[in-house]
Amino acid sequence: MDYLFSALHKNYEEMVSIRRYLHANPELSFHEVHTPAYIANYHRELGLQVREGVGGRGVVATLRGAKPGKTVALRADFDALAIQELNDLPYKSKVDGVMHACGHDGHTATLLVLAKVLKEMQEQLAGNVVFIHQFAEEITPGGAKPMIDDGCLDGVDVIFGTHLWAPMPLGDVGVRTGPIMAAADMFDITIHGKGGHGAEPHNSVDAIVIGSHFMTQLQTLVSRRVDPLKSAVVTVGHFEAINPFNVIAENVVIKGTVRTFEESVRSLLEQEIELLLKSVCEGAHATFDYKFSRGYPPVVNHKKETQFLADAACLVPEVQNVKECAPFMIGEDFAYYLEKVPGTFFITGAKNPEWEEAYPHHHARFNFDERAMLIAAKTMGLATLKYLKHSK
Amino acid sequence: MDYLFSALHKNYEEMVSIRRYLHANPELSFHEVHTPAYIANYHRELGLQVREGVGGRGVVATLRGAKPGKTVALRADFDALAIQELNDLPYKSKVDGVMHACGHDGHTATLLVLAKVLKEMQEQLAGNVVFIHQFAEEITPGGAKPMIDDGCLDGVDVIFGTHLWAPMPLGDVGVRTGPIMAAADMFDITIHGKGGHGAEPHNSVDAIVIGSHFMTQLQTLVSRRVDPLKSAVVTVGHFEAINPFNVIAENVVIKGTVRTFEESVRSLLEQEIELLLKSVCEGAHATFDYKFSRGYPPVVNHKKETQFLADAACLVPEVQNVKECAPFMIGEDFAYYLEKVPGTFFITGAKNPEWEEAYPHHHARFNFDERAMLIAAKTMGLATLKYLKHSK
Amino acid sequence: MDYLFSALHKNYEEMVSIRRYLHANPELSFHEVHTPAYIANYHRELGLQVREGVGGRGVVATLRGAKPGKTVALRADFDALAIQELNDLPYKSKVDGVMHACGHDGHTATLLVLAKVLKEMQEQLAGNVVFIHQFAEEITPGGAKPMIDDGCLDGVDVIFGTHLWAPMPLGDVGVRTGPIMAAADMFDITIHGKGGHGAEPHNSVDAIVIGSHFMTQLQTLVSRRVDPLKSAVVTVGHFEAINPFNVIAENVVIKGTVRTFEESVRSLLEQEIELLLKSVCEGAHATFDYKFSRGYPPVVNHKKETQFLADAACLVPEVQNVKECAPFMIGEDFAYYLEKVPGTFFITGAKNPEWEEAYPHHHARFNFDERAMLIAAKTMGLATLKYLKHSK
Amino acid sequence: MDYLFSALHKNYEEMVSIRRYLHANPELSFHEVHTPAYIANYHRELGLQVREGVGGRGVVATLRGAKPGKTVALRADFDALAIQELNDLPYKSKVDGVMHACGHDGHTATLLVLAKVLKEMQEQLAGNVVFIHQFAEEITPGGAKPMIDDGCLDGVDVIFGTHLWAPMPLGDVGVRTGPIMAAADMFDITIHGKGGHGAEPHNSVDAIVIGSHFMTQLQTLVSRRVDPLKSAVVTVGHFEAINPFNVIAENVVIKGTVRTFEESVRSLLEQEIELLLKSVCEGAHATFDYKFSRGYPPVVNHKKETQFLADAACLVPEVQNVKECAPFMIGEDFAYYLEKVPGTFFITGAKNPEWEEAYPHHHARFNFDERAMLIAAKTMGLATLKYLKHSK
Repeated sequence: MDYLFSALHKNYEEMVSIRRYLHANPELSFHEVHTPAYIANYHRELGLQVREGVGGRGVVATLRGAKPGKTVALRADFDALAIQELNDLPYKSKVDGVMHACGHDGHTATLLVLAKVLKEMQEQLAGNVVFIHQFAEEITPGGAKPMIDDGCLDGVDVIFGTHLWAPMPLGDVGVRTGPIMAAADMFDITIHGKGGHGAEPHNSVDAIVIGSHFMTQLQTLVSRRVDPLKSAVVTVGHFEAINPFNVIAENVVIKGTVRTFEESVRSLLEQEIELLLKSVCEGAHATFDYKFSRGYPPVVNHKKETQFLADAACLVPEVQNVKECAPFMIGEDFAYYLEKVPGTFFITGAKNPEWEEAYPHHHARFNFDERAMLIAAKTMGLATLKYLKHSK
Repeated sequence: MDYLFSALHKNYEEMVSIRRYLHANPELSFHEVHTPAYIANYHRELGLQVREGVGGRGVVATLRGAKPGKTVALRADFDALAIQELNDLPYKSKVDGVMHACGHDGHTATLLVLAKVLKEMQEQLAGNVVFIHQFAEEITPGGAKPMIDDGCLDGVDVIFGTHLWAPMPLGDVGVRTGPIMAAADMFDITIHGKGGHGAEPHNSVDAIVIGSHFMTQLQTLVSRRVDPLKSAVVTVGHFEAINPFNVIAENVVIKGTVRTFEESVRSLLEQEIELLLKSVCEGAHATFDYKFSRGYPPVVNHKKETQFLADAACLVPEVQNVKECAPFMIGEDFAYYLEKVPGTFFITGAKNPEWEEAYPHHHARFNFDERAMLIAAKTMGLATLKYLKHSK
Repeated sequence: MDYLFSALHKNYEEMVSIRRYLHANPELSFHEVHTPAYIANYHRELGLQVREGVGGRGVVATLRGAKPGKTVALRADFDALAIQELNDLPYKSKVDGVMHACGHDGHTATLLVLAKVLKEMQEQLAGNVVFIHQFAEEITPGGAKPMIDDGCLDGVDVIFGTHLWAPMPLGDVGVRTGPIMAAADMFDITIHGKGGHGAEPHNSVDAIVIGSHFMTQLQTLVSRRVDPLKSAVVTVGHFEAINPFNVIAENVVIKGTVRTFEESVRSLLEQEIELLLKSVCEGAHATFDYKFSRGYPPVVNHKKETQFLADAACLVPEVQNVKECAPFMIGEDFAYYLEKVPGTFFITGAKNPEWEEAYPHHHARFNFDERAMLIAAKTMGLATLKYLKHSK
Repeated sequence: MDYLFSALHKNYEEMVSIRRYLHANPELSFHEVHTPAYIANYHRELGLQVREGVGGRGVVATLRGAKPGKTVALRADFDALAIQELNDLPYKSKVDGVMHACGHDGHTATLLVLAKVLKEMQEQLAGNVVFIHQFAEEITPGGAKPMIDDGCLDGVDVIFGTHLWAPMPLGDVGVRTGPIMAAADMFDITIHGKGGHGAEPHNSVDAIVIGSHFMTQLQTLVSRRVDPLKSAVVTVGHFEAINPFNVIAENVVIKGTVRTFEESVRSLLEQEIELLLKSVCEGAHATFDYKFSRGYPPVVNHKKETQFLADAACLVPEVQNVKECAPFMIGEDFAYYLEKVPGTFFITGAKNPEWEEAYPHHHARFNFDERAMLIAAKTMGLATLKYLKHSK
């Protein structure tokens, strides 16, 4: 623990410089080329066993301890977003319209330097550490699934991952047993009525009126169909019927999202939305198209491993507050790892204490306090060491 | 014409006394016993050919003119209502809870005295006059249909009828080609959800919420499904879900009425209400019962006969104003006669000029200006004479 | 009558050629330059007194009869539409994107040739005929109002106008006392909610949900607030909330039309829409913009003049059927003339008997049977002659 | 611990016989007379200091340990329900229409026998135990509040209470930090429209249609206004508009319940329901009455004390499973005690393992496995002893 912490401190500047290099050179999801090459190269130079192109564009590096033991996986994602950076920084994105606006640059830098330090501790290690560098977290179907299919979890006993979180104060670590990130699904609807002259509703099927009744009934799914002790959101963000004011709308296009933490609620809503849509249309002589596209499943943390990680975080000097956080209604494909092996996904506070408010993730002025990377590295590193020790 | 008018004048007091006798001795629809006997007796004493028990409780009296010709039918209904009279009159109803609150007593008195006068003119008459005294107009299925089935229209060429109308000023006669009275139908719905604890909506099917969505969508039938140039009303007067405040409603009972002037609109609504109900229930896992009970069809006046009647009315000295009236959204089984033979149903104003406002029909304080009977008798009598003369 | 009819026959070919010339050279509403010049020139060559630039771009020609008498106004509109003609005709529009797709070319040709013939009858005429050639009927605020303000009705006793109507068979003439064309108004709404992340409805004000509740309640205006014996349409043709599927909508733009035949209903709806909108927004913490733009008032035909015109139409040999037509739920600024002087607006059937179905007005393939112009000219001409004769 | 457990075992038969005596002699909330007298007598015979009539009908007995120390309060409620028992038991209720259908007889028997045993341990006790026997838990405003106002918590450091729970298996103990029971509030609404003839909606204000729009918009409070991570239920169980089918409803009466776990959500809903109601009524020319009656606040368990109780429960041999239970959406006035002093309310499983399913609480056939009383007594007894020991 002492060595881990001091060695990470010593390498903090490198961590920062790696992060800034990545920040300046972002690559979009499913289009990552230089980033994985950079990562693979770093691990190779450390002397780790490296596998590239995992599941497409992922990189997996393995550190084998001197003694046999369990295998811990640590995961960082490395893709960026289609956002034009508006920050004025020395390491501002050099790629027009692409930006690391979610902190994945920090995740990667954290993991690389942690690998370097753990490599230095190889002789003491009883067991292995697998560094999973994942591509394409931001866009479904995501990189986690193909990387798992390509074996990145083979032999893994436990997995840890974190998200640097700009709205949470530096020094806070958020943990949560059970669902911590939501299933974030999408639906796409077209209601087909029958257009006509605005003065002749009886010869038409007014798609706007039908869509409005659908919208009002849709509210009952959350208010009446879902267990009030469970969380669910059904939001329609897009309702489109662009016509002259005096023409009855033939079609309406409706697009929305469903957020849930449990498969049963998710499936319920997927089915109930369709049932409602079908019935509203049938009652009004309209037809419809319905497409429900599943995003990532919910991230469901395992109890024991979450407690384990929380205990480790308590020992990190820079951590002032390990707290149970509320679940987040956003998606994250870390979910797939936790469906296969035990583990936990935690939140590392990254808001500079001097900022009154942080720009939200995915904002063109997003940034985070880089010291959060050190906290994340220490927490994951300590959890790894303790896990290997305890599970001997 | 001169004789007709002066003879009716001479008999006006008898007309009033007959009306008052009937008013004091009302009988409920389908329970008329003394009234038809009284009517039959009157006609018999005049020397007319009388048939009793027509279609059940109807009376038909026939006056055959000295010369051959066409046959004119005149109709008056004679049933009363289940209303406790609140008027303080010498001729107030003697029967508790039963009242002539719609003027049928006046219709009958008008027709009887007109028969008396026309009988006096028998020698001049080329053709016949049939006096149809109908029972049970107030309650579906009504007396008109069985009386027709029992032959009351056999040999009839044209039919006239009127309603004394208290809200219309004395001296006005309202005529209208096409629909003048509506089809007045009834529907009866039960929505079957699944009751439950108020805190467990997800284990229940909330019939109140479903009923409310049905109600809001029901508005679109008039606003979007019916031709805006046609009239229709869909009213729900009864919505019943009586439960403790904290229990989810298992059932809702909904009762309403549909008013239309055309069969196509009527059928459309009968079907669309069910389609809507079905779809709302299916979309919410509920089931339903639906019963649509047709009342009388619309009263649709024939063009030529309406014009004929209007022309006659213009010649009645007491008539100040023959006007096209708006259609009435109430039912009247005179409709059935007009489905069989040409004719017209008109409105005879009966509001005393000194009343600021008349009590509406079916009100416990309803009354009418008895002079309207004289106007009705003159108008129908003149129309009859002219029709027989012209159609020789 | 005989001379009128035969002279019109003789000039039918000129009528057709004028119409085709105008058809080939259409001008948009409020941009008419050559058309009014052409019209003014025609009348001037006939020897009529001509006033140009009336109310802007209108032309008024006056024919004074040899003897004094009343003054009859006849009106034809002459503007075209922003439609690209798709007909393949020798006289197809020469102006890209502009087309006489509503028959105003025919109205103008009819009136010009009728003027020529009446001019020939000047010696017999006791009274005057005013030919009102109106610009800009298609687009509010229309040309009628400024032309009236500029005196085009001064001294006028009665006005007649017609619309050639392609969906009505050639030989039919449609007349109607009271409202024949609707008030056609427009409303424009923006609901301002508060945008937000799709997973955080509690921090947002969802404009789509509010707009949907507005839409469902809007249906009650026609179903519950308007007298069921009166006609009204409230149609929303445009409902726009274009956002990513997972973002809560900040704004919704709603555009619609209101069609009515009576000022009381029109005002009621103008107010009730706003009241509803206001209440729905207030109940959900949103704000709104509301603009109600009045189009033309309803065209309300006068009784006596309508009967007069109908009687004249019956005498036109080519007219097979003078019928009461249902009112049209479209707007027409002939309304303004009838607010000032008695008169009537009638419909001249213009569907070629060999066409199975006519293209509707405002369609890129619209056309009409040119013989309808002759019928219109005879009807208006005869009505004019009879009116001047009778009202001497 | 050993003595406590064995002494409770020895007295289990007395516990059962007390419970059965109380079961056979139930008294309604706010009408308890014999039950509190019985309780007071029992404690007096044990030699405890007894105060009767606390807050009205409550009984408070105090056991002072030999040595000074902290004060632990234990609470049991003793009122019964207005239900006719349908069980066929030797100890079936002797009072027609009144039944211990919620287990309060068991709560009382548990506490009395626990008092007896703790009294036997008086010499070892450092500190005091206060036995709070509460009247009127079932009906707001409940007995807890007046008992607190009357000093029942004076000097109390911590409070424990439990509910025997028939749907939870015997051997389970449910604990939960934070909200465990909901705020259960009531609202009562009348919408005043304007009645009228079913065919004349335009002269009326249709309260059913307004009520339906209120109902559909009400769904948005849970779906859009409440944080999806927080629980809330808004249920309308009563919707009453009883009229003839063809009459427009003048009034609608709506009654419902709101269930929440947090004051902020509770207040939000109290206000938003009114805002919604107000706006729907204003938009439709109606008025309203609104009454929101607060029931008990949520029962919010304190963290340390919950953990303390859970640890004690783990040491009870008959307890097989101490688990975090989901919160219950029902009300319980134990809430008031926890607003004043730290403590926890826990659930003691009471379903006989041989029952396939238990009848729910408040059911006419409700019963529980009496061995649950022993578990409850051991758990509360041990928590009391440990608390007094640790906090010395």
